[in-house]
Amino acid sequence: MSKFLGIDIGGTNVSYAIVDENGEFANENSIMTSTIGSVEELADTIYEAIKSDLKGLEGIGIGAPSVNIQTQQIEYAPNLNWGDVIPIKDIFQSRFDLPVVVINDANAAAYGEKFFGGAVDMDHFAVITLGTGIGLGMFINGEIVNGSNGLAGEIGHSIVQLDGRECNCGKFGCLETYIAKDGIIQTAKELLEFSSGGSLLQKISPSDITPLEIFKAARKEDPVSLEVVDAVTKYLALGVSNLINILDIEHVFLSGGIAKSGNILKRKTDKYLKTFVLPNLRDKFDLRISEINDKNGAILGSAALAKQKFEAVH
Amino acid sequence: MSKFLGIDIGGTNVSYAIVDENGEFANENSIMTSTIGSVEELADTIYEAIKSDLKGLEGIGIGAPSVNIQTQQIEYAPNLNWGDVIPIKDIFQSRFDLPVVVINDANAAAYGEKFFGGAVDMDHFAVITLGTGIGLGMFINGEIVNGSNGLAGEIGHSIVQLDGRECNCGKFGCLETYIAKDGIIQTAKELLEFSSGGSLLQKISPSDITPLEIFKAARKEDPVSLEVVDAVTKYLALGVSNLINILDIEHVFLSGGIAKSGNILKRKTDKYLKTFVLPNLRDKFDLRISEINDKNGAILGSAALAKQKFEAVH
Repeated sequence: MSKFLGIDIGGTNVSYAIVDENGEFANENSIMTSTIGSVEELADTIYEAIKSDLKGLEGIGIGAPSVNIQTQQIEYAPNLNWGDVIPIKDIFQSRFDLPVVVINDANAAAYGEKFFGGAVDMDHFAVITLGTGIGLGMFINGEIVNGSNGLAGEIGHSIVQLDGRECNCGKFGCLETYIAKDGIIQTAKELLEFSSGGSLLQKISPSDITPLEIFKAARKEDPVSLEVVDAVTKYLALGVSNLINILDIEHVFLSGGIAKSGNILKRKTDKYLKTFVLPNLRDKFDLRISEINDKNGAILGSAALAKQKFEAVH
Repeated sequence: MSKFLGIDIGGTNVSYAIVDENGEFANENSIMTSTIGSVEELADTIYEAIKSDLKGLEGIGIGAPSVNIQTQQIEYAPNLNWGDVIPIKDIFQSRFDLPVVVINDANAAAYGEKFFGGAVDMDHFAVITLGTGIGLGMFINGEIVNGSNGLAGEIGHSIVQLDGRECNCGKFGCLETYIAKDGIIQTAKELLEFSSGGSLLQKISPSDITPLEIFKAARKEDPVSLEVVDAVTKYLALGVSNLINILDIEHVFLSGGIAKSGNILKRKTDKYLKTFVLPNLRDKFDLRISEINDKNGAILGSAALAKQKFEAVH
């Protein structure tokens, strides 16, 4: 049975696993990104952790933010501190002596959904990853969308509010500033400041307020948290509705850490979608939580892409 | 030489021409849409006008708004008053006894650009039609984008302003309400009402204020008109930037009546695009006025599609 190493590099964690052809994981592990000083160190760390299981490994797939698929480098990733231009393919290839393919983390999630998740039979779908940043991977007409320069998918930097919040990218009003991790926390802190009633969020230290804590409090009907969730789902629905209105994409999967907040996220986003999507498309789309979100779509997808590219004829 | 009839149905005018394989037009004509009571009447009118030149005609391509490409009908077009569901393919087929293909008017413009315009060698491009409504036709990975239900391209109904202007579609803040014909006129009237200084627009009767008059006055530095053009180009740039950020579409063509306002439209939209597009994509896109805008991209494109589908082997 063929085996491939899938690696998902995120702003908060690097996760990896050896994936077999049924999508089963072995040696699954996660490292805090901030504890890793360089990509060379990352390659060494993963190599050491799995070196007793390298036998039979046929290739490596890496999903990362800000990937230039043409150069196979990470270029100017705002949420990584490993340098401006990182030749990540070359570094892993020489450390492991195996073929390596690098893709955008959100495209990796889309490959994961296509090969092992809910999109197996779909020609048109999108996967939105919700976490430290916001990613988007799409299949249109049965093909992955990389765009003219391999840089497609930056829905997190589509503008949802003219002259809105300042974004790390230097622009104003990007979707990411409202629905990615820091944006959600910012909304909570702004609302707490002006809130006269109490909030469950005041019982935790401000530095411990996370999206998951906020969603948890919202499920307990905490008014401030409900307001935060309302704002998040309104902007998320705005972004998703633009995909549906512009591309008539029927299936949109939500993936990533924040998508684990589950039913309340989907339910409230659906409510806003009903008012943001064109009337004649309102019964023609389907928002769902990724079916492989308990696993890790980007690990699965990058391993699946490596399989597709490198699998030896057995 | 093969010949095809191309028809472009718009909210204001229906235009048509017999198109030869070099993209040259014969029998070109235009009828005001409001003077036509039904699609049967439209088919009769065009038939009568060109009946002496029917010889050699091999098929008909029709570009229209709100086309369902699966049923080949016009369905619930907000800017046409010919009934809810119009079996336009069948009506023209039986009137002309020729094969007919119907597509979305903006997709027709994209086909026109692809076969006869500036996009001949492009795999990723978009054509935005600016007129009574706002249309969008796209090629991604070398293929036209129809979407899951044949309804892709509704960028005019992407939301650019939360809780913004009410749209004919029932939603609020749609791009169309700011940059389509009526939206531009509304902005001008709102600004005129609160303007203390004079304006060239006050010298024409309010009912004669059109986008072209506004752009003309803006070129003469009329302050109110410049403000209108500023608002229009800001929202247009917002819509275009979302395409670029999300799809990494390098080439965006502006087409349709309002695109004929020319250089000032492109120049000011470009200015806003520089602040709305992600920094790493800012030197990787190209906004231009359609190269076939003096002709009629939708006539050309629908005729080209008919040629592709129906051309007999000679």
